[in-house]
Parts: sequence; C-alpha cells; structure tokens
Amino acid sequence: MNRQNVAVVGARGLVGKEVLNILEERDFPLRKLTPLATEESVGTIVEFRGEPYVVHRLEKDAFDSVDFAIFAASCEASAEYAPVAAKAGAIVIDNSAHFRMAPDVPLVVPEINGQSAHEHKGVIANPNCSTIQLLMVVHPLDLKFGVRRVVVSTYQSVSGSGKKALDELANQSLAMLSLKEPTVEAYPHRIGFNLLPHIGDFDDDGYSGEETKLKREAAKILGRDDVLISPTCVRVPVFNCHCQSLNITLKSRASCEEVRDALSNFPGVEVIDGVLESRLGMANREEDVNDYPLPSQCSDRDEVFVGRIRLDDTVEFGVNLWSVMDNLRKGAALNAIQIAELLA
Amino acid sequence: MNRQNVAVVGARGLVGKEVLNILEERDFPLRKLTPLATEESVGTIVEFRGEPYVVHRLEKDAFDSVDFAIFAASCEASAEYAPVAAKAGAIVIDNSAHFRMAPDVPLVVPEINGQSAHEHKGVIANPNCSTIQLLMVVHPLDLKFGVRRVVVSTYQSVSGSGKKALDELANQSLAMLSLKEPTVEAYPHRIGFNLLPHIGDFDDDGYSGEETKLKREAAKILGRDDVLISPTCVRVPVFNCHCQSLNITLKSRASCEEVRDALSNFPGVEVIDGVLESRLGMANREEDVNDYPLPSQCSDRDEVFVGRIRLDDTVEFGVNLWSVMDNLRKGAALNAIQIAELLA
Repeated sequence: MNRQNVAVVGARGLVGKEVLNILEERDFPLRKLTPLATEESVGTIVEFRGEPYVVHRLEKDAFDSVDFAIFAASCEASAEYAPVAAKAGAIVIDNSAHFRMAPDVPLVVPEINGQSAHEHKGVIANPNCSTIQLLMVVHPLDLKFGVRRVVVSTYQSVSGSGKKALDELANQSLAMLSLKEPTVEAYPHRIGFNLLPHIGDFDDDGYSGEETKLKREAAKILGRDDVLISPTCVRVPVFNCHCQSLNITLKSRASCEEVRDALSNFPGVEVIDGVLESRLGMANREEDVNDYPLPSQCSDRDEVFVGRIRLDDTVEFGVNLWSVMDNLRKGAALNAIQIAELLA
Repeated sequence: MNRQNVAVVGARGLVGKEVLNILEERDFPLRKLTPLATEESVGTIVEFRGEPYVVHRLEKDAFDSVDFAIFAASCEASAEYAPVAAKAGAIVIDNSAHFRMAPDVPLVVPEINGQSAHEHKGVIANPNCSTIQLLMVVHPLDLKFGVRRVVVSTYQSVSGSGKKALDELANQSLAMLSLKEPTVEAYPHRIGFNLLPHIGDFDDDGYSGEETKLKREAAKILGRDDVLISPTCVRVPVFNCHCQSLNITLKSRASCEEVRDALSNFPGVEVIDGVLESRLGMANREEDVNDYPLPSQCSDRDEVFVGRIRLDDTVEFGVNLWSVMDNLRKGAALNAIQIAELLA
C-alpha cells in the first residue's frame, strides 16, 4: 500500500481515539496524520505512535492533500465538511448517519460488500454499529443456508452514546451505591442499574431511530430487502460492547454444527460456544459449558463473537444465537479503517 | 375470608420478605403468622405489622394447624417439607421449581388459570417469574386475537438470584468504579457492568434451565402446547425488575390500539406507551413519547407493565412489545398470595 495522508475528524471522541489506536495497531501506511476537531478540542494534544499531535480546527482548508478523511463526529459536522473534504480530493469515510441512505454513497462492511466501496464518489458511509453486528452474523448464514427473517433484540452499551454517557453511567452507579440521587442528563431516564428501550428518536410507526436504521441499512448493504428484520433496541448499563439476541429463520435446514462452521469460517467472526462444544463432545473441561461471548471479554477485540447456538423448533429452519461486538471497534473505527485499507 | 394461619418458609430471603410485606399491604386475613427458616436464620427476628416475630426452625412439626404454607426457599427445602406440610393439613404454595411440572400439582397464575388452584392435592406451584411475566402479556392477546408464536429475549435482574447476587452486583460495581478487581462468586462470570446469557443449567438441546422452564411451564398453565415459545434468557446488571422483548405472531389482525386495549383491560396489566399515545394523538406533552416501562419505575408495583407496542410487518399479524415486572412481587410473592386469597 502507498503511504497515505489521513485526517481524523473528531479525534478526541471515543470513536476518534479508537481510530488512532487501530491505525497504530494495524500499522496503517501513513505519511501524515491530521487530527481535526470542532472548537472545544482545538489545540489539545492526542498521542499517536508515542508522539504528540496537536488537534487542528475542522475548517474548509483542513483537507488539502488529505487522501482519507475519517469522520467520527456529529451528523452536522459530516453534512458540512464531508463534501468539502471530498471536493479537496480526499476519500471521506463517514461514521455518522448523515450520508448512509444517500443513493450515491456506498454503505460498506468490507467482509460483506467491500467491492461497492470502489463505486464511491468521494464519500463512503460506515454503517451503524448494530447493523454491522447483525449482518456479520446474518450474512454468512444467508450465503450458506439463506435467511428469511431475523428477530433481533439488542443489549447496547453506553459507549455508543459517547464520553458523556460513559461518565453518566459511572456517576449514576456511584451515586446510587452511595444512596444519593443520580443526575440524569445523557438520556431521557437514568441508565445506572436500569434499561432503556429507546435508542434514537421514534418514527411514525413506533420504531426507534436505531431500530429503523437496522432495517434500512441492512437492505442497502445486502442490496435486497427480502431478508426481513424485526428489531427491538435497548440500552443497558454496560460500558462497552453491544450484544444481540437473534432469532433467525433460515431458508434451508442447518444443524447447530453447520451453523457454527458457517460462522467460524467467515472472516471477522469467532464462535465461543462451550454449550454446543459440550453437546458435540468437543469440550475439554466441564466448566467449558460456561463459555459464551460476554461484553467483559470482547472489549478491544476485532471480531464479532457468537455463541448460544440453538435450533428453534417453533418455526421451520429456526436458529437462536447470541452475539457480542466491541461497538467502538468493528462497530465503528475498525470498519472505517478496513474500508480505507481496501482503497489504499 | 376466614382468618388463616400462615407459615412462610424462607421468611428472611428476598421473596420471603416480600411475602410478609404483601400480606401486610393487602391486609390478608391472618390469625397467626409463623416465619420459618433453615438453620442460619433460626432465632432471628422479622417484623410484621410493626411487631417482632421470631423465625422458627423448619422442621416436621412446624406445620400443625397451619392453613397456608408459603414456601420461598430452596428446591431441596420444598422437596422435603412441602409433603410434610400438606400431610399436616396445610395448603402449600411453593415458589420453588420442584413441583411445578408434577402432573398432580396445579401451576397457577390467578388471572389466567385461577380455577385450577381448586384442584390441588395439598400442593400448588407458583410459576417461574419469567413465565408469569410472559403469560400475563401473551394470554390476554391469545384470548382476543389468538397467539401462534412468541420469540422472547429476557433482561433479568439479579434479585431473582437472591441476596448474595444483589450484594455481588453492588460490590462488583463499586470495585470496578474504584479500579479494583471484582470478586466473582454468585455467577460463573462477573455481572457488574456485564451481561450473562446464562440462567440455570444448560439442557441437552442447548437451552438454559430458565429458557426450558418458560416453554414447559407456559404449556402447562395454558393447558395446551400450541402457543409456541422461543426464548433467550439473559441476566443484566439491574437490581430488581425483569424485562422482556417480545415478538408475537398473532392468529388474526390487530391494530396497535386493539393490542393496547386488550392488554389494558386485562387485570394486572398496565400499558405505559407514550410513543403509541403520541401516534394516536392522545399524548398531552411532547415528552410523553419518552414514557415506556422501566425497571427504575416498576419496583414495588404489582402490575406487569407493557409498552413499545409496534406492528411487525415481517410476518403476518406480527407485534413487537416490551414488558417490565417486579420479579419479586408478581413474579413470586404476590402471585403466591393471590393464590392463597383465591382459596382462603
């Protein structure tokens, strides 16, 4: 790969920091790194490969000679500056929702529709974290067995809402454990030791923004709308890693072992299923039955992890699964960098 | 109602305490209260109607002249002493799983199959909390529209695992917020800021004990096995109140409003659905859209709360719902006392 000039917009945010971490970890072929941010972070320092980098102002001439501009800021910042960056010749990879459904903007999960990244007209959109997590499981099964319908209930961590939400979960939890009144700012209700069935604004059909994104983005990425998705999205008091409970109706018969193999053989997916291995006589120790993906074990990991694979006999060709993904990595920063790597 | 002699086995446990609270709140017609427990709690004091009661030893002659023996202890305690209590002439209402699937033991949710309580032969079983929560929502819809299939993902609080688990969630949370290593004892993994897709031992088909209970107990309570249930049960870091994400396939068409009415009109169910009310033009304030059932608001409440009612167009006659229930009350203690009230 040729060496690239990369700008990271929102370099001090949770996703922006993860972008820097992953560029470093994967030894991305960088010529120059330009951290950018809006007002409040301008002039602050981020560290990259042990060196300090001053955060520059996100402004019109910030993208001169930039090859890749990775946007990890607000929809508003993307709406205003992504076209500017593209016009200056950069390939924009945008984490915000702003361009995802635009017809001339590819929406890309490299393992699934990487080829569509090449059709970009300056801007490529990174899908929503929950969409990536869902499709990384559904697509391998769709390739192998066909997928008719997916009922998904999510268990989404607060890191998806940014730093203030992380602080709020910690502060509310501490307040409650100290029998003090928790302060509520990041969400409409307390998240500490609580669950909120509400992610994003509600649409006219009663679905939340997050739920609607799952349906629409999946159809765009798969290039067809016959993989039916019925979602319920819930915020849980976990710092990082999203989980999904998936009920999948396949189009043809599959054993648990075949489902496991289809998932294990797909790049970026790892099966952790001690229950299934015990049932198949493959477990080494009795405690292995307690191996299934957990948020506590999947942070800072690149893969989408799947476990609790069970046949569902309430429908023809039904399967139940449980998946866990670091929403800041494969759900955001890693996926964006994989797109850049495809094109670099 | 005639005044009754009531023994509460496990009077110092979370459910036992709630039994005492609810007997007091509902002004149950008591002649005599006998708190019972195994070794470690014998001689300790519980308070009831402002008076101290000494906890007596659970032993063979503890049930003389007892009318109702409410068991809220272990399966082992129920297995050994429920037959003793029944033989002594008490009606046993058992919260443990031990007798639930026994053919000659009624498994009762008073609002659903209360009449079957009268067929007891000395022992009546209280269903598992998740089963009660599920059926309190599914049964009214089944009566009105018919229910073909339910895909349920649970979000279950730690109070369902007893006092040690409550302490462990608090202690682990505090440890983590203090950057200390949390101690793991109550579950196979940390529950603080984590999620465990594992409740009860795993069966040969890969389903957990809690998941299998949901399927079997529902069929017994409904008296038929054609309401198909596909469950995934997950423990969440919440102190009290279980939540369920339900995807329900009805047998006939229903609008969101009709679903809401069928649920609202059923005793023991309350709909909190600001999203739906806003859509129906019934909300008073813009913020009402943020009204949905939350664990933080449903503790110490008797009802099963339902919200987020949405049609699911991925299947004929599909509906998505979200429910919340205080698992110690309607999920355990309240349901047991309602059974006693039926028979008193």
